[in-house]
Amino acid sequence: MKLATLQQHHEASFVAIVDAARGRYWQVAEIMPGLAVNMNQLLQQWESIKGDVVPNGEGYPLVGVKVCPPLIPARNIFCIGKNYREHAAEFSKSGFDHSAKADEVAPEFAVVFTKAPETVIATGAKIPRHAQVTEQLDYEAELAVIIGKGGRAISKADAFDHVWGYTLINDVTARDLQKNHRQWFMGKSLDGFCPMGPWLVSADEIDLSAASIQCWVNGELRQNAKISDLIFDIPSLIATLSAGIELKPGDIIATGTPAGVGIGFTPPRFLQTGDVVRIEIDGIGRLENEVGQ
Amino acid sequence: MKLATLQQHHEASFVAIVDAARGRYWQVAEIMPGLAVNMNQLLQQWESIKGDVVPNGEGYPLVGVKVCPPLIPARNIFCIGKNYREHAAEFSKSGFDHSAKADEVAPEFAVVFTKAPETVIATGAKIPRHAQVTEQLDYEAELAVIIGKGGRAISKADAFDHVWGYTLINDVTARDLQKNHRQWFMGKSLDGFCPMGPWLVSADEIDLSAASIQCWVNGELRQNAKISDLIFDIPSLIATLSAGIELKPGDIIATGTPAGVGIGFTPPRFLQTGDVVRIEIDGIGRLENEVGQ
Repeated sequence: MKLATLQQHHEASFVAIVDAARGRYWQVAEIMPGLAVNMNQLLQQWESIKGDVVPNGEGYPLVGVKVCPPLIPARNIFCIGKNYREHAAEFSKSGFDHSAKADEVAPEFAVVFTKAPETVIATGAKIPRHAQVTEQLDYEAELAVIIGKGGRAISKADAFDHVWGYTLINDVTARDLQKNHRQWFMGKSLDGFCPMGPWLVSADEIDLSAASIQCWVNGELRQNAKISDLIFDIPSLIATLSAGIELKPGDIIATGTPAGVGIGFTPPRFLQTGDVVRIEIDGIGRLENEVGQ
Repeated sequence: MKLATLQQHHEASFVAIVDAARGRYWQVAEIMPGLAVNMNQLLQQWESIKGDVVPNGEGYPLVGVKVCPPLIPARNIFCIGKNYREHAAEFSKSGFDHSAKADEVAPEFAVVFTKAPETVIATGAKIPRHAQVTEQLDYEAELAVIIGKGGRAISKADAFDHVWGYTLINDVTARDLQKNHRQWFMGKSLDGFCPMGPWLVSADEIDLSAASIQCWVNGELRQNAKISDLIFDIPSLIATLSAGIELKPGDIIATGTPAGVGIGFTPPRFLQTGDVVRIEIDGIGRLENEVGQ
């Protein structure tokens, strides 16, 4: 199942089941009248209502409907750094990671930082250039995990029971701020720095063992890796985070980016106004954003 | 003015004006019937209602009323690291800061990380020991700034116009997690790791230029510094954060801790179950928490 947050003209946004192949949607509030209608609220209630959230009738055409950010989280997004071996190496070598030796390939423990909820923007929205604070804007294509059932001290064996599904994010980064401020939050969390979407895809609908993540800038393929190449896999990340932090429905874990980011090139290839970043994972969809002024 | 979140027996919590010296409180919802009553909502509306939020009548006695966390923020708390010179030196020397050289005294740019809203607990509540994930629990006494009027690209000159007031926090830290995971979030954001309070004190009520922050563990004075010793002062922090992040009413900025934390000693003196951490700033009050099981 795909769940999206949609908007007709300038009316209030709503949550809908989407059939992307057929170009149809079903409004959840029509299927279940009276149900709270933003995605976060829906995920809070999911365990008790999931059997009833099924398409009903022909639905409506997706054409002309605006796709909004699928989910605005209730707290900062959990983000993982240096979680693909080749990217960890390119990042260490670039000199932009204040905490790494130049020859470091993989961290021994998961590197975790956050992005504020206000970083989230929809596919199609412009990435703010923030030219007044950064000269080194970069992209990072990532698979994001959406937590369904919450929990604490979740074992690796049980981890997938807590995954509602997945989406795509672009972990946009101001490399100069990331480097200068050492802790990465300042470089990672400027307003609009987290394009997300186009929708959430439930875990039963996608086989990640074979899936690739790809990222193009202005049509040029820059990142291309197997999700199975993650250093810390999804069960490991959930176990590590939940050991001391109760995970909640609607929490988002961005799992890290593979090699091929702008600072992986010599000289670095930073994003400029007008550049278009496109990210895809088969079975999820396409997240595409232009860099604005 | 002091604003607290209080609770009578097991009824719903409410926001109140507090006169700590006289031991009285006034419930904001009684002063202004119909007003939304959690602290975050109150701060959202503050600019338009502040003239009306004044004590009315004799109020009620504080004795026997439970003091709750004053404010649960709507997104992670912005936290500043290594913002007092002597502490920056003790932390660098301790070997627990993965990104620092051992002889580093002051960072060139503010170091910013976050703590999730779920870290917040009240004065008097027990700090979770989290023995299953850390053997190195530490305390950090800090002044926290509460944002009143929101804004973007706030200049240093205008910064104090955006400060509602202040409170105390204990930036509890699992040093082993902080070191191992490099980015500090994992060591800083375990559930219950941010004792806060006892209440918010408006900026007009306190002169920070002369104020000291002090911290005792089991009655032994461990930290004692002038707020004026901050490396990056409050206007600098607000200008840096707001350059690319729109600050919002109710945002919290923890300004960093002075020298005297557990890892500043040789050997380090970590917190154990039963230890009591007490933090004070004249004019704000006392934040006291015992370490639980």
